[in-house]
Amino acid sequence: MSRASNGTSALTRVLAVLDAFGADQPFLTLTQIHRRSGIPVSSVHRIVAELVDHGLLEPAAGRTYRLGNRLWEIGSKTPGALGLREIAEPYLRRLHDVIGQHVQLSVRIDTDVLILERISAPDAVINGSIVGGRIPIQHSSSGLVFLAFGEPGLLDAVIAQGIRPLTTAGPATADALRAAVDATLARGYAVTDGWIHPASRGLAVPVRGSEDVVVGALGAVIPNDGRPAHRTAELLRETAHRIGDALLRAYLPASHPRALPGGNLRALVSSSPDSMRFLERRTR
Amino acid sequence: MSRASNGTSALTRVLAVLDAFGADQPFLTLTQIHRRSGIPVSSVHRIVAELVDHGLLEPAAGRTYRLGNRLWEIGSKTPGALGLREIAEPYLRRLHDVIGQHVQLSVRIDTDVLILERISAPDAVINGSIVGGRIPIQHSSSGLVFLAFGEPGLLDAVIAQGIRPLTTAGPATADALRAAVDATLARGYAVTDGWIHPASRGLAVPVRGSEDVVVGALGAVIPNDGRPAHRTAELLRETAHRIGDALLRAYLPASHPRALPGGNLRALVSSSPDSMRFLERRTR
Repeated sequence: MSRASNGTSALTRVLAVLDAFGADQPFLTLTQIHRRSGIPVSSVHRIVAELVDHGLLEPAAGRTYRLGNRLWEIGSKTPGALGLREIAEPYLRRLHDVIGQHVQLSVRIDTDVLILERISAPDAVINGSIVGGRIPIQHSSSGLVFLAFGEPGLLDAVIAQGIRPLTTAGPATADALRAAVDATLARGYAVTDGWIHPASRGLAVPVRGSEDVVVGALGAVIPNDGRPAHRTAELLRETAHRIGDALLRAYLPASHPRALPGGNLRALVSSSPDSMRFLERRTR
Repeated sequence: MSRASNGTSALTRVLAVLDAFGADQPFLTLTQIHRRSGIPVSSVHRIVAELVDHGLLEPAAGRTYRLGNRLWEIGSKTPGALGLREIAEPYLRRLHDVIGQHVQLSVRIDTDVLILERISAPDAVINGSIVGGRIPIQHSSSGLVFLAFGEPGLLDAVIAQGIRPLTTAGPATADALRAAVDATLARGYAVTDGWIHPASRGLAVPVRGSEDVVVGALGAVIPNDGRPAHRTAELLRETAHRIGDALLRAYLPASHPRALPGGNLRALVSSSPDSMRFLERRTR
């Protein structure tokens, strides 16, 4: 792709503009985009104009811009994110009906946990999770799941970045993090009492796809009240098992007797069986 | 932005590659990307390599690619899409607990309805809605809402595109569509009996933001069984009113006594009040 005089490609500059927007800064002026992206003002003007043309940015109040609905639309075609959340959503909802508090689904991205979905309740405890937001692996119960059951080498990469607990309850040394990972392996689920805030306990279990590969983590954030975690962990494990089974059925060949209805749509869409058959016929 | 010899910009070509992926085609080979985007094979190779570098595409099974989780992550920062669905989600869930079937939230994009969220049930009737998918305004009860209560001029634009019903129940002429819009205005809600499939009835009401501007449509898809629609419409109206109130409170100045907690995060995040206060303190 074409490069500017300083060697950065057009795509790199577009992504720097889009990445200037954050959950805490969803509306930015041209000057703010320039400051947060490090891209010269004249280039920001030109890139923003073209992004607005394509609907990836939208003008908002007070001479600001916001990320556009077209961008969300394109992002909704991701099997690993929206697709996984579509398949898991009915199970998350049923789990939330039982647990209340916060129930959430995440994937790993580099050495962070990326939150795909969270269902909460007005009286739920403090939870640091934002849909579309990241939490460093070392702070999170879902992170422990990826460390314990995910790709080998990940723990070393996280330790190499340095251990910095958010609270006095979190692991402060590489050895303490290793011990938490070992305990997660032995137990089959992760527990983090007060790692993000003293009031909250995180619990998480792996979600497994084909060949038992860990494709996500299912978690709950509940009060850190010292009660046994076993029953909530059992509910998480049971739900993760059902999500894993639905994932398998979504990726079986469409002709397989256990395949979910919906053909190619199954990787991204989860609706009622009647709707899936209707949608499949329409897209053939 | 830099242009290829045929005058298309780098961003246009990147978007053509990303738009080659669809809900029914989430996994594509390089050759398929070339065919669906119309971009020369050599350029497809180069663009795909750079998109993979940035995580916007991910390699998948059988020499295919899929849209990457990084793309979903960027798209999750859209106040008009993910933000609106975040604010509406607890209300959608409560509505679904009462109505069952399908409950959905959408916005308008050009002359289409873009589905932001849908909550369904295993026994729910046939519904053509896909999260992230579009339905032409003329076929949809949510579309009627935008025609009746949205921007003036939209009806003429839709009629100019030509009227093509999906079923014999849908409007077949411009006059029939105008009559349906008038009935929607008079009634205060839209009803489409069998427009998408004979088995299904669509109902929808406007969701209003500040200054009563219609920012979305709240809909239900239920059996087309001839029963009076009034009670379901009332539930939709009540829920849309609550979502509109939450939207107002999310966009009030943070110091206002009725403002939701969460500061700048309120446009994109809806969690428990304790969590919103915690997240706000962390981002300050």
